[in-house]
Amino acid sequence: MSRVVNRHHEAAYAGLGTFCKAPLALTPADLEGVDVAILGAPFDEGVSFRPGARFGPRAIRQACNFLWSPPARPHMHLGVDPFEVLDVVDYGDAECPPADLAGAHREVKARLTELLVAGVFPVVLGGDHSLAYPDVTAVVERYGKGNVGLIQFDTHTDTAPVEWGGPLSHASPMRRLVEEGHIRGEHFLQIGLHGYFPDPEDFDWARAAGMRWYSRYEIDRRGMTEVMDEVIATATAELPEHVFVSFDIDVFDDLYAPGTGSLESGGLTPREVFPALNRIFAELPVVGMDLVEVAPIYDRSDLTALLAHRVVLESLCGLALRRSGRRLPGRDST
Amino acid sequence: MSRVVNRHHEAAYAGLGTFCKAPLALTPADLEGVDVAILGAPFDEGVSFRPGARFGPRAIRQACNFLWSPPARPHMHLGVDPFEVLDVVDYGDAECPPADLAGAHREVKARLTELLVAGVFPVVLGGDHSLAYPDVTAVVERYGKGNVGLIQFDTHTDTAPVEWGGPLSHASPMRRLVEEGHIRGEHFLQIGLHGYFPDPEDFDWARAAGMRWYSRYEIDRRGMTEVMDEVIATATAELPEHVFVSFDIDVFDDLYAPGTGSLESGGLTPREVFPALNRIFAELPVVGMDLVEVAPIYDRSDLTALLAHRVVLESLCGLALRRSGRRLPGRDST
Amino acid sequence: MSRVVNRHHEAAYAGLGTFCKAPLALTPADLEGVDVAILGAPFDEGVSFRPGARFGPRAIRQACNFLWSPPARPHMHLGVDPFEVLDVVDYGDAECPPADLAGAHREVKARLTELLVAGVFPVVLGGDHSLAYPDVTAVVERYGKGNVGLIQFDTHTDTAPVEWGGPLSHASPMRRLVEEGHIRGEHFLQIGLHGYFPDPEDFDWARAAGMRWYSRYEIDRRGMTEVMDEVIATATAELPEHVFVSFDIDVFDDLYAPGTGSLESGGLTPREVFPALNRIFAELPVVGMDLVEVAPIYDRSDLTALLAHRVVLESLCGLALRRSGRRLPGRDST
Amino acid sequence: MSRVVNRHHEAAYAGLGTFCKAPLALTPADLEGVDVAILGAPFDEGVSFRPGARFGPRAIRQACNFLWSPPARPHMHLGVDPFEVLDVVDYGDAECPPADLAGAHREVKARLTELLVAGVFPVVLGGDHSLAYPDVTAVVERYGKGNVGLIQFDTHTDTAPVEWGGPLSHASPMRRLVEEGHIRGEHFLQIGLHGYFPDPEDFDWARAAGMRWYSRYEIDRRGMTEVMDEVIATATAELPEHVFVSFDIDVFDDLYAPGTGSLESGGLTPREVFPALNRIFAELPVVGMDLVEVAPIYDRSDLTALLAHRVVLESLCGLALRRSGRRLPGRDST
Amino acid sequence: MSRVVNRHHEAAYAGLGTFCKAPLALTPADLEGVDVAILGAPFDEGVSFRPGARFGPRAIRQACNFLWSPPARPHMHLGVDPFEVLDVVDYGDAECPPADLAGAHREVKARLTELLVAGVFPVVLGGDHSLAYPDVTAVVERYGKGNVGLIQFDTHTDTAPVEWGGPLSHASPMRRLVEEGHIRGEHFLQIGLHGYFPDPEDFDWARAAGMRWYSRYEIDRRGMTEVMDEVIATATAELPEHVFVSFDIDVFDDLYAPGTGSLESGGLTPREVFPALNRIFAELPVVGMDLVEVAPIYDRSDLTALLAHRVVLESLCGLALRRSGRRLPGRDST
Amino acid sequence: MSRVVNRHHEAAYAGLGTFCKAPLALTPADLEGVDVAILGAPFDEGVSFRPGARFGPRAIRQACNFLWSPPARPHMHLGVDPFEVLDVVDYGDAECPPADLAGAHREVKARLTELLVAGVFPVVLGGDHSLAYPDVTAVVERYGKGNVGLIQFDTHTDTAPVEWGGPLSHASPMRRLVEEGHIRGEHFLQIGLHGYFPDPEDFDWARAAGMRWYSRYEIDRRGMTEVMDEVIATATAELPEHVFVSFDIDVFDDLYAPGTGSLESGGLTPREVFPALNRIFAELPVVGMDLVEVAPIYDRSDLTALLAHRVVLESLCGLALRRSGRRLPGRDST
Repeated sequence: MSRVVNRHHEAAYAGLGTFCKAPLALTPADLEGVDVAILGAPFDEGVSFRPGARFGPRAIRQACNFLWSPPARPHMHLGVDPFEVLDVVDYGDAECPPADLAGAHREVKARLTELLVAGVFPVVLGGDHSLAYPDVTAVVERYGKGNVGLIQFDTHTDTAPVEWGGPLSHASPMRRLVEEGHIRGEHFLQIGLHGYFPDPEDFDWARAAGMRWYSRYEIDRRGMTEVMDEVIATATAELPEHVFVSFDIDVFDDLYAPGTGSLESGGLTPREVFPALNRIFAELPVVGMDLVEVAPIYDRSDLTALLAHRVVLESLCGLALRRSGRRLPGRDST
Repeated sequence: MSRVVNRHHEAAYAGLGTFCKAPLALTPADLEGVDVAILGAPFDEGVSFRPGARFGPRAIRQACNFLWSPPARPHMHLGVDPFEVLDVVDYGDAECPPADLAGAHREVKARLTELLVAGVFPVVLGGDHSLAYPDVTAVVERYGKGNVGLIQFDTHTDTAPVEWGGPLSHASPMRRLVEEGHIRGEHFLQIGLHGYFPDPEDFDWARAAGMRWYSRYEIDRRGMTEVMDEVIATATAELPEHVFVSFDIDVFDDLYAPGTGSLESGGLTPREVFPALNRIFAELPVVGMDLVEVAPIYDRSDLTALLAHRVVLESLCGLALRRSGRRLPGRDST
Repeated sequence: MSRVVNRHHEAAYAGLGTFCKAPLALTPADLEGVDVAILGAPFDEGVSFRPGARFGPRAIRQACNFLWSPPARPHMHLGVDPFEVLDVVDYGDAECPPADLAGAHREVKARLTELLVAGVFPVVLGGDHSLAYPDVTAVVERYGKGNVGLIQFDTHTDTAPVEWGGPLSHASPMRRLVEEGHIRGEHFLQIGLHGYFPDPEDFDWARAAGMRWYSRYEIDRRGMTEVMDEVIATATAELPEHVFVSFDIDVFDDLYAPGTGSLESGGLTPREVFPALNRIFAELPVVGMDLVEVAPIYDRSDLTALLAHRVVLESLCGLALRRSGRRLPGRDST
Repeated sequence: MSRVVNRHHEAAYAGLGTFCKAPLALTPADLEGVDVAILGAPFDEGVSFRPGARFGPRAIRQACNFLWSPPARPHMHLGVDPFEVLDVVDYGDAECPPADLAGAHREVKARLTELLVAGVFPVVLGGDHSLAYPDVTAVVERYGKGNVGLIQFDTHTDTAPVEWGGPLSHASPMRRLVEEGHIRGEHFLQIGLHGYFPDPEDFDWARAAGMRWYSRYEIDRRGMTEVMDEVIATATAELPEHVFVSFDIDVFDDLYAPGTGSLESGGLTPREVFPALNRIFAELPVVGMDLVEVAPIYDRSDLTALLAHRVVLESLCGLALRRSGRRLPGRDST
Repeated sequence: MSRVVNRHHEAAYAGLGTFCKAPLALTPADLEGVDVAILGAPFDEGVSFRPGARFGPRAIRQACNFLWSPPARPHMHLGVDPFEVLDVVDYGDAECPPADLAGAHREVKARLTELLVAGVFPVVLGGDHSLAYPDVTAVVERYGKGNVGLIQFDTHTDTAPVEWGGPLSHASPMRRLVEEGHIRGEHFLQIGLHGYFPDPEDFDWARAAGMRWYSRYEIDRRGMTEVMDEVIATATAELPEHVFVSFDIDVFDDLYAPGTGSLESGGLTPREVFPALNRIFAELPVVGMDLVEVAPIYDRSDLTALLAHRVVLESLCGLALRRSGRRLPGRDST
Repeated sequence: MSRVVNRHHEAAYAGLGTFCKAPLALTPADLEGVDVAILGAPFDEGVSFRPGARFGPRAIRQACNFLWSPPARPHMHLGVDPFEVLDVVDYGDAECPPADLAGAHREVKARLTELLVAGVFPVVLGGDHSLAYPDVTAVVERYGKGNVGLIQFDTHTDTAPVEWGGPLSHASPMRRLVEEGHIRGEHFLQIGLHGYFPDPEDFDWARAAGMRWYSRYEIDRRGMTEVMDEVIATATAELPEHVFVSFDIDVFDDLYAPGTGSLESGGLTPREVFPALNRIFAELPVVGMDLVEVAPIYDRSDLTALLAHRVVLESLCGLALRRSGRRLPGRDST
């Protein structure tokens, strides 16, 4: 089967519900020449509070509010249309069986591995954050243990010990990745942490593991621009040559992203996060990303889904600049 | 391009959002052997009160809550799975341009005509009820003026004179169909009318045109079973050999169908309407249907969209019985 | 000041938000020749559970979904347009001070008395059901103690003793009306009661007072038509020559009327209640009505407000038949 | 610890959120003399479509809208206050670990067994319908294999084979109960089935197992009263001496119960179901019940939670009549 | 007819739903001495994505949460009550026919022209942004081509070419105004642009036309205060002697204004926009404004409608300072 | 009765709905050794616009999203777990009778006095802001007139004269406290004021009374950090030795806190308010607090309730630092 393309004059609310009306590709044979693929991971059996992220992939795709097919999507400030530079397809959803978290992880990993084998940059749309375990291990299997660094946008560290709730829940994936040796603790950079955690023992463990974080408290004190200068410098100097970005939508203040499962007042804003994403994808060797915990049943007017959609677009704009050998506009330009 | 088929183990909330996970067909070349096609008509520029039906086709498709792809859909009572008997595809959406009602009508008619030419039974998902004008005229062009009867489920007659609001609005399509000679007045059977209309002049016009209706008041008095006996007998005896069914979701009580634009308290219930649809499609020569006025932004928990989804399924179950030479279960069976 | 009239071509969502786009009259001087006046009573400080009925009058008025100003509103089945027969105005809202229940009652009674003095049939839109105390006492002052009967549609009897919550709450108005001698117990007919009350002592009190009721359990057993035959016969034979109708929206099943404060599963349906109202207003000497407990903040898609709007219209249709010397259609007509 | 009792003058929205403001008992030592205990089972990791039933127990408890503590709750028609006759406590929630379905089942069964050992009638509030497996097996362990019959109110049979989704999901519990010998197929009576299932093979299996059902189609044809006459007669004659009632809230039409995970248009109404529950609990030897699939995140104005609350109350009213040696009112009484 | 004034002690939720409880004036004869008039333009047939702005005028008016009639409305910081300084009336709604965009534009222009002829400062409440075409052309007809400058707050430029969607949609009004010579390109100042547009050709066109904008990216870099210094200086030096302000509510971040049709994450905040409006209206020769794209059906708790209400108030406070010869408080005052 | 403790492994959505799963204490005898008690004040009969704050206490308690019982709650930045340092209990709700504002005030004051007599730090969860009258007078009775200062976070001053709406409404409590001599005007510090008030006479009164405020306009100009430096310095130098904090949730921008009754666009953010609370409670002699006007029926996804929950936690973290003799982290730490 070849790729499926929408009818041309599709309104935003019409047509195939693929990401940004990208062509649909369902088999590895359709990945020839593809740069980027969107893959849905619709499961939420790993959540500890409010479920619903299984509906995230569909909601993020359909939050697209652009006319025509394909629509023009030039970033006003960056001056790049990621779909002009990159050949992007929608790879559909992994076949996650309901009520079977291990099965969901297995299916996501299989489908993601097809993308990695084909040399495609994956954007995995969760699903709950336990997704990080199968998707990061797939990336590590592709690039080798110790060869992948991880930049995590999140309110929480997701490094709980695995005793309670079982080893697969969304509270623990980062701990498992470190403890099992997939990612080294010092190859973690976490951005946006705040709130009522971690337990003293967890905190000790994280420090001992060499993990680093830029909390929202630090961002309040120093400003996001300065923090990102340090993130980029540190990542360039100390992370391995492959970087994966794991983005939990709850890093945003919950009023920007009410449609998620684990709320915490006082998070980041789009005007802080979007330029950070532009920089990370333009200036660092990112090889894939996931975007998790969009639970549309708690959303309003599709705000959270739209925000997630734009998180992907802002990331792809950075990637498009990098792939086309261009740089971010200087800070003085309009 | 050949048809596009979902991955096999799709959860209800995953995969291509086609109707009942049916294969997707986007061009006439894909219609070989097809019995039934779902066509979306996403526009609502013709509404006079609450807009939003442009989001109806997507919502109805995605209200499907069946697992697997294709799922089993045997009707417990009728003992038939319409997708076993009928080759059904999803033909996508007509390319209705926003803010251009005439353009939307033109596109729907063009796409629908492709289906009719290919001998496919069309199920058109609106969209507002002005849809009846382009879709019925397309059907009449296929079968000939005077050769098509119309059974309309609706709270309103949609026979307003066209002076105000313009000739294209959802208040007038049935009047235009009669006045322009597409359907003869005596070939109309309307079911479920109630509320505060029509104006005396409209009422006089309708009576003069020979239109017939079975109001909700009559259904209250006689019961739906008896009314349907008469509908079937009358249609069999007096309607032409081709029947089109135009179903406005607002025929249901507004609490069953809050997601619509023109509410009126006191409508019909699913337990009255579903058996009526089973009979009409099993016992009459229906050649197509539309289903209109689902406006999901006023809906709750997708109740209206799900109800619309089931309206189509109940109709297709009747059609499947007819196509397979079977009859409805007798009234004494369970 | 003379009456205020809307612009002519008003859409349903435009223009002065008066009831059914009726002219606005704000002073007694504007009541010359008026048959019926709508009066808002926006307060809810008397509720014992979920407040919000203070927003009821505005919501009921704006639930109107008719085009033009004035719109045509012929009742399809009854064949009467109440606004053709009756001169109806909107008398605005009583100036109920927030956080002052006694003050609200005082203001409503003053405004209502202006209508009664002018010989106008009042339709009072609450507000919580404590409204029945000021509005019924105003009516009784007009017609004399013992000269007014009361037909109450309600899930609850509202006859709690006044010890707790204070004498003004919405739990007690009917008890106060009887105990203070405004209405005699045997002049009460209550329709639709069901649920978990009254306390044995209250039940004893009500029986001793001679109150009568037609519970939903009785309606289930006998059917609404037969029950209404008895209501009409009893009211004709045994109620005084003036009848007031007090209609609590919670008599409807809570899914028909979610926008109210005191829910109880298992209430009546519009198809049971509307014909009952037609009969009561057409066949009995009704001199006024109130409609209470519409709390739109719990509503969905304005369903409850619309239902309340139609309750008034169905009542006015009955009144219009009576005032024009016409009768209800026989049961055999369509 | 002794039982915990609310302050006396609690409004509906205040105080300990126990079921009907019943005293709280958290340990077996607090169960002395108790007749009935409410037990929460807050998990939903077994659902195949829309999760959220983990929030069901809290929502059902708090849907209570009665004043005072304890409130009076006399059933108007039955003339009984279940809390007068029965000593009812709230036993809190089982400690269901999130993201661990097997763990949730284990905890529920342990807590339920404490109640059964103490001779207490359990009312288990789910949670998803996979709950039926642990709770029915606990009851069967108490009374012996083959000694328990099951009456199930449900839209679905929940008898899917266990191959996909794992053996624990909410699609299969009834099949497991039969296949493992806990309940014999002919000891099942299912009420309210309708919609698009079961697969032919499942249907064959159910028939071979001797399962019986009263579909909504049969209820439409015969009426609920007649169907219940047969249910009571059959249960009396053919079920074992202990009966468990498993009540899936989705047996109600989805507009009565939007707050659930698996919608199907066209279900039963409270006015059909409540008298059925009165009869079953008054006339059959019921030894426990569960109530499942209330998912409040899809609810509106707490309608579904309130309906679930009343399902328990209507059941307890029947039980109270039976325990006090009284009978249901004859059909001719008001 | 003279003006209509509310009863005095009106609660926020009571009385005539005029803007800020201003008197109602429906004919030109009522405009004697009036300074400012609010005019509703309830239509949305020009939207390309989510309709609903036809309900905007009513929602904005009723978002008013001030007690009494007229209420006091002193701006705490500016020390001015606009209704003390200015004689403000509510001029009702233009009679926009549903389903007829050209008709709606015609009616708005006619009503607005009545205000301009009477020398009244108009505040036009949309409605979708296609409103800018009729309202700006009306203003230009009053003051002469080339004599009006336009300051636009918006996320989008609304300068799409008119080929698709027809010439009247909300995507194109600014392009038409320039291309038809009503406003010169260099007389445009746009504030708040950001997101994924314009197409390269549109961008070229806008630059060629001399249009200027202050994007959100520039505001991020320079701060709103500095940007506004430049806006005021530029407008003073280079715009004509009459300035019209066109305010699209979507210039706010979508979480501040979810109730709109075209969302884009990352917009401005009220604390940025309100002082900007104060300055523009106090320091520039503004002759009218519109406020568009409030679509309350997507709103929550009336947040967007309230925000729109305050946008008008903040503007009128600036205007009141200007009309009374006063200045904004210095930056050092509290 | 001794305190009631939850089962250990409680999910966030399970178990006793006490604040942060704290033990429940219902009588003074249970207060031995207690440091802090949460007391609910569920009433809203004092509101002038949107009621619903009676549901606030329950919603705030249940917004807790921490696992286990008791959960760990270490503040990531402050490095303190308030429940480790402080013995906190939930004291349930005052028995506020509905529809009786004076009765509600009386009951709250009685229950609060029990806490003060026992030496417990009270956190009173409203309820509407008229709560400040009974709770502050109770505190003043404990510490003596003139010995208590008040820091108020609020959008409004709540100092309206008491003529209209009655002396008990939420518009006037601060005025009554001053006029009756409980708190001296110069012992008031108000933070966050903005919008359209006060009337000139009120403003004169407040200035004459010596009241001081830090408006949102001042915060915009100087920044929250600098303002708080002044607040702390002023409070230390000029307030009495006991400080009460009265926190109205509407001080937040309404999009952070939609679930409240009196919205005003342009309020403060959590990232401004949380550090302010940390400082006030760590550095000033606070003896109690209230938190008012959370009205969950207007909320979305429990955002407002969660925010209120965190306001209490941030306050208790400051208090815990103070009680344990520790200081806030320096501004340079992460």
